[in-house]
Amino acid sequence: MRPTGPLSRLAPVALIFFGRGAPAPECLPTEELAECARTALERDGVTILSYGVGGGYGPLREWIGAKHGVEPARVVLTNGSLEGFLFLTRQLLPSGGGRVLVEAPTYDRPLKILDRFGTEAVPLPMDEEGLDPDALADELASGEKPAFLYTIPTFQNPSGRTLSDERRRRIVELAREHELVVLEDDPYGLVRYEGEPATSLFDLDGGERVIYSSSFSKTISPGLRVGYFVLPEGLAAAFEAQATFSYISPPYLGQATIHEFVSSGRFEPNLERVRALLGARRDAMLTALERDFPPGAEWSRPEGGYFLWLDLPDGVRTADVAGRASEAEVAFVSGSDFFPRGAGGESALRLAFSFPSPDEIGEGIGRLAELVAAATPAASR
Amino acid sequence: MRPTGPLSRLAPVALIFFGRGAPAPECLPTEELAECARTALERDGVTILSYGVGGGYGPLREWIGAKHGVEPARVVLTNGSLEGFLFLTRQLLPSGGGRVLVEAPTYDRPLKILDRFGTEAVPLPMDEEGLDPDALADELASGEKPAFLYTIPTFQNPSGRTLSDERRRRIVELAREHELVVLEDDPYGLVRYEGEPATSLFDLDGGERVIYSSSFSKTISPGLRVGYFVLPEGLAAAFEAQATFSYISPPYLGQATIHEFVSSGRFEPNLERVRALLGARRDAMLTALERDFPPGAEWSRPEGGYFLWLDLPDGVRTADVAGRASEAEVAFVSGSDFFPRGAGGESALRLAFSFPSPDEIGEGIGRLAELVAAATPAASR
Repeated sequence: MRPTGPLSRLAPVALIFFGRGAPAPECLPTEELAECARTALERDGVTILSYGVGGGYGPLREWIGAKHGVEPARVVLTNGSLEGFLFLTRQLLPSGGGRVLVEAPTYDRPLKILDRFGTEAVPLPMDEEGLDPDALADELASGEKPAFLYTIPTFQNPSGRTLSDERRRRIVELAREHELVVLEDDPYGLVRYEGEPATSLFDLDGGERVIYSSSFSKTISPGLRVGYFVLPEGLAAAFEAQATFSYISPPYLGQATIHEFVSSGRFEPNLERVRALLGARRDAMLTALERDFPPGAEWSRPEGGYFLWLDLPDGVRTADVAGRASEAEVAFVSGSDFFPRGAGGESALRLAFSFPSPDEIGEGIGRLAELVAAATPAASR
Repeated sequence: MRPTGPLSRLAPVALIFFGRGAPAPECLPTEELAECARTALERDGVTILSYGVGGGYGPLREWIGAKHGVEPARVVLTNGSLEGFLFLTRQLLPSGGGRVLVEAPTYDRPLKILDRFGTEAVPLPMDEEGLDPDALADELASGEKPAFLYTIPTFQNPSGRTLSDERRRRIVELAREHELVVLEDDPYGLVRYEGEPATSLFDLDGGERVIYSSSFSKTISPGLRVGYFVLPEGLAAAFEAQATFSYISPPYLGQATIHEFVSSGRFEPNLERVRALLGARRDAMLTALERDFPPGAEWSRPEGGYFLWLDLPDGVRTADVAGRASEAEVAFVSGSDFFPRGAGGESALRLAFSFPSPDEIGEGIGRLAELVAAATPAASR
């Protein structure tokens, strides 16, 4: 039965999915990748189909190394970059425990990994300019030394926020001063719809204590699972040894297919195409939020990436909205999933605009706005 | 400079590599896989190129499930089967420690994983018929309960030995009697050059407490990294959750390429081709050992697989042979690598016959025989 009352304008259409950071199917260059996979195997089949080194397919490590100005031995390819987070945590905290500094909110899967290792995730506050360097300085001055700082400075997951240039420089200075290892996770940086590219912490630091991780999930295809880490010289060999220990060598076929794609001049044109497809989705979401949401709700206005962060009006709890979301056929992730346990997000949520069409986004935001209105206490309306 | 004296007949040719269980390049069906990768992406590109479930590419899970007579949900694909060993150990020993029963000798990489988890690998003796069930019974009757038994019953790595049918039944009975979980690792079973197929422990048990793992590394290609586990109902979901936790979803491209290969009728003809190529290598190694080795040396005569186990004559230590192997340009793995620390293998070694050509195998065994002769104490010659 269709809901009535405040939900009555919902059309009887399928679930609109703002839940996961997945690209719309039309972003995937299927035909080109089919051609690239075949070409890669025809050109270098024996290498691709045999056991190899744990760090990944050589020509792609070389390509990434050249892009970042480092030796290929400092580049390690992983099955998506999340797996590299697992390797790094194990490497820097071999007995588990300890502390890792994180943005609050931050990507939820690394929080689960830290939890499994018995490692304390120490939340550092953010605002619209990203991580607050003063809070980082305070923590470094007073707290037990952390194993590393985990940051997603550009189009952050989940907030969509981008760290300002001034703060980037300040954070790199603090890292040097306190001999802090920084993991800069940058899967979204190239997926920019407006504005000027930011300088990476890795480049500001010169790659001495900043580890850079990224992937081809957002620029080519997530299903190929090609992530990578660019590591300081002193950390790269042990990091690669974790890969060998876990699976001998990684699947080279996806890596070689990516290499064929990037080395045949397809990367930039595809990126432009993806930017146009996803930029239109971001625009559709911002337009719909302005149209449908009451005063009191606030949201980030990301210049790129996949996500937008929504703070609900005063007095509205995400749990009350989430409780009826399934019935209303609109999906999102509750804000509290992105904070270390109990540290916040009870009145916020993450919206991924990457998957539905612009029309579906308009419809889905309408459904969500009705849910929020229904959950708003009468006194606040 | 070439060595002289006992090594003088060595020809000035490159390293002959008996070290690793890797297939000869001509075993790899490169052209066919290039075609399969393209076809798979053209047919099901959006699924392959998107995030999916942690357990792997659905159609291949279905194909494997049908082969083993289980629901696809009980099949989990991993990046090679070694990674599944890591998942299973973490699942059954979440806090590390504990004990796992292993064959002595056994595959060295799982020993390293157990060591990392602080888990005791309890060695059980083998003979030419494989694992000794009486030793297993004694251990189960007297020792602290192990988390599981790890066995490679067919063409074992490293010994090449195969567990007899009678022992298979006895081990399954013991497992039932003692509620013992058994991990049956069977990557080599289909690579048989003579004799009748053995019945798996999994089939004898009905898949209740025997977990079956295998891969396509030895039948199609190791570089595609497609391993799989067939799990009892009660263990499958938590096992799959480990995969999701580690890398969200696995690389589907290799899995879909394998699926296209097996579902287009290519598996059996390719397996016949591989059997012929590798069977000739096994024959070449057995012939050369008979020709070149002195009385006192003993070796296994595997009916399939990749490996043969060589016990050196009395008084000859593997370390003395290994010390000159690099100079003589012949590579193998020392027997002690396949035993839990200090538990044996000091006068044995593993020879992989899968990689060099039959002619190279003849030459390499000749080099090895000279090294062994040189290391044999005068009194024993």
